[in-house]
Amino acid sequence: VKIAIPIFDGITALDAVGPYEVLARIPGARVTFVATQPGTKRTDNGSLGLVADRSLADLPDPDVVLVPGGYGTDEAENDETLLAWLRAAHETTTWTTSVCTGAFVLGAAGLLQGRRATTHWGSIERLRVFGAEPVHERVVTDGKIMCAAGVSSGIDMALALAATLTNDVVAQAIQLGIEYDPAPPFDAGTPFKAPPEVVDLVRKAIAARRG
Amino acid sequence: VKIAIPIFDGITALDAVGPYEVLARIPGARVTFVATQPGTKRTDNGSLGLVADRSLADLPDPDVVLVPGGYGTDEAENDETLLAWLRAAHETTTWTTSVCTGAFVLGAAGLLQGRRATTHWGSIERLRVFGAEPVHERVVTDGKIMCAAGVSSGIDMALALAATLTNDVVAQAIQLGIEYDPAPPFDAGTPFKAPPEVVDLVRKAIAARRG
Repeated sequence: VKIAIPIFDGITALDAVGPYEVLARIPGARVTFVATQPGTKRTDNGSLGLVADRSLADLPDPDVVLVPGGYGTDEAENDETLLAWLRAAHETTTWTTSVCTGAFVLGAAGLLQGRRATTHWGSIERLRVFGAEPVHERVVTDGKIMCAAGVSSGIDMALALAATLTNDVVAQAIQLGIEYDPAPPFDAGTPFKAPPEVVDLVRKAIAARRG
Repeated sequence: VKIAIPIFDGITALDAVGPYEVLARIPGARVTFVATQPGTKRTDNGSLGLVADRSLADLPDPDVVLVPGGYGTDEAENDETLLAWLRAAHETTTWTTSVCTGAFVLGAAGLLQGRRATTHWGSIERLRVFGAEPVHERVVTDGKIMCAAGVSSGIDMALALAATLTNDVVAQAIQLGIEYDPAPPFDAGTPFKAPPEVVDLVRKAIAARRG
């Protein structure tokens, strides 16, 4: 299984690395970080570099594409090289997927037209710009497109992907390998569960960052 | 708050990037990836490079140290430059922490002697080599040392750290920002919950890798 994760400056590291950690453990899978221009990409808060080993052109026919999000998707949505690569790859993928605002890059490539999709709760209504129907679920599948909600939800999506690409035993072995028995110290992971002042704080932070 | 994440070849990416994604969102925090020799470090399965921007010597006095795990800890345990830096940094840290087999690096530095600690379930008994008492919990705190269990548990530890470094509202805002409302498709994240054949499969894979 050839898995391509396109990255770019301004990505959210966990959007890419959460699923990577799961997918790279599929027996026989090869995960490659690709970019329009290979090399080091800086994350959205600038303090980490992730290396794209290959150009998009080096990997024209992945079985699985996973597009991570981050504020850098504002630019990635207008990267015609990336969008053309996504459209072409999608013709032959088994799964075309996104995490968080990576959905907007799929949308900009025209791949979400008329489909149910999801992204980070703070930007979910914007999916309509691309003709998609926003769905408030952690992982949304429509045909061979799979979208995860915000950041950490990519881990759950990747386990579901691993199960479809192999079987439940392998997916469970991966879950056990990464000891994914989550126990967050708070129950504030969605705007439906977090205290109102916390939701307000995050909404304001997103608005400030978006400018 | 100055947060240092030492990395090395053979790290498990999510051990470092899960906590990074949480800690980098603490207002005023600066997370720096450091290494004995700065530059690109390859993850344990080889398909991702993470960049250490600074040398250990550049950051002698972090407030928080977080040591990730991975098969590369076998070598890191014998990196005297890293061990000496950990011992010196620990004198003045607020928190000295590890994820997964990163605990063995703290142990090799002599920091776990007589302490309760944890690491990946598959290697937990080895903590005794370093005079530590193995505890089967997801996050274990003893004094100013905090250890997370395997890989993904670093996210939960980082949220607990964020709460102690700031307050519950900020920690919850970070959780909401990364939409951490986990919903794994299986309940197989610990050897106590996974089906026996899955536990057996993972134990064999670990043994094969360890050689």
